[in-house]
Amino acid sequence: MNVQTFPSRLLERAVDEFAKLPSIGRRTALRLVLHMLRQSPETVDRFAEAITALRHEVKFCSVCNNISDTDVCSICSNPKRDASLICVVEHIQDVMMVESTQQFNGLYHVLGGVIDPMGGVGPQNLNISSLESRIAQGGVREVILALSTTMEGDTTNFYLLKLLKPSGVQVSTLARGVSFGDELERTDEITLGRALVNRVPL
Amino acid sequence: MNVQTFPSRLLERAVDEFAKLPSIGRRTALRLVLHMLRQSPETVDRFAEAITALRHEVKFCSVCNNISDTDVCSICSNPKRDASLICVVEHIQDVMMVESTQQFNGLYHVLGGVIDPMGGVGPQNLNISSLESRIAQGGVREVILALSTTMEGDTTNFYLLKLLKPSGVQVSTLARGVSFGDELERTDEITLGRALVNRVPL
Repeated sequence: MNVQTFPSRLLERAVDEFAKLPSIGRRTALRLVLHMLRQSPETVDRFAEAITALRHEVKFCSVCNNISDTDVCSICSNPKRDASLICVVEHIQDVMMVESTQQFNGLYHVLGGVIDPMGGVGPQNLNISSLESRIAQGGVREVILALSTTMEGDTTNFYLLKLLKPSGVQVSTLARGVSFGDELERTDEITLGRALVNRVPL
Repeated sequence: MNVQTFPSRLLERAVDEFAKLPSIGRRTALRLVLHMLRQSPETVDRFAEAITALRHEVKFCSVCNNISDTDVCSICSNPKRDASLICVVEHIQDVMMVESTQQFNGLYHVLGGVIDPMGGVGPQNLNISSLESRIAQGGVREVILALSTTMEGDTTNFYLLKLLKPSGVQVSTLARGVSFGDELERTDEITLGRALVNRVPL
């Protein structure tokens, strides 16, 4: 759809802004904006307010860097959680994913990404020194590396393993294998190969 | 993803608001909100401002009901356009679609929908009386009905044809046939049947 076909500059500006969002094209942006136009002014104000409030008022936990409404997040400040166990993840949404499994009762550490030399992300760009400080303070028994199973994730795993080994803390990583519900013929060779090597006795 | 896994109420509220948009699920909403969080506060403010400005300041053309920044839209007020030709469409985005063809130089009339008795939309809920007034003022030679090729679109076509016939204005509708680039074996029977009946001599 051409730019000159927009009947209103207000409309065009709103579409432009929506189209900047990831995986939202101009056609989808127009559909979303026209939906907004059909809502009450109060509904639209509530939408805008929720987003600006998030951006301006959000805090990041001073311990684990997770998003938080308070200085220390609700997970780090929960006395029922096992503070001797730290799960290292890339992003905030990974914390939410692990939490949704209800299989983990330790604390987290959000790196903010993985080491990616090609993309210009080095260890100094990630929350790694704060992880070292947490471990130097003592009381940590195990660090679980729950990063992406990509080349960059593996690089970061290796870097952190070398870094943390001298502290004597147990470093582990997520089990890799065939996904639940996967058919063997649809599994890639690397995953299947690793699953064979790491086979579990029944 | 469970509600209780949200680490921040500000985050949850922003995700809730995004998830209200059509065809945006909670997972996509979270992704969009976390993208917002990585932008500068100014970028987020600009986004919010564009949407609230649209909703609060937008006008609808007093002649054709198209969205407009002025009382009469840029199409209706353009002296180069043929005011004797009115293209009747359902929605604002249909005006933009027809404009993008660059094949139409007349004016528009946005109905705001089609007659849909099952959905509780009657002629009184649409911008039909204002269309009658425009034609009663004289100077209109032809009305082109460019509505959806659905049952409701056809009902509306029929209603408008009956309504406008006494005025003596020529009423026409979009040509129907096989789409450009369509393979015959993928065309539905009704479309192909109509295309045969309305075949064009070469």
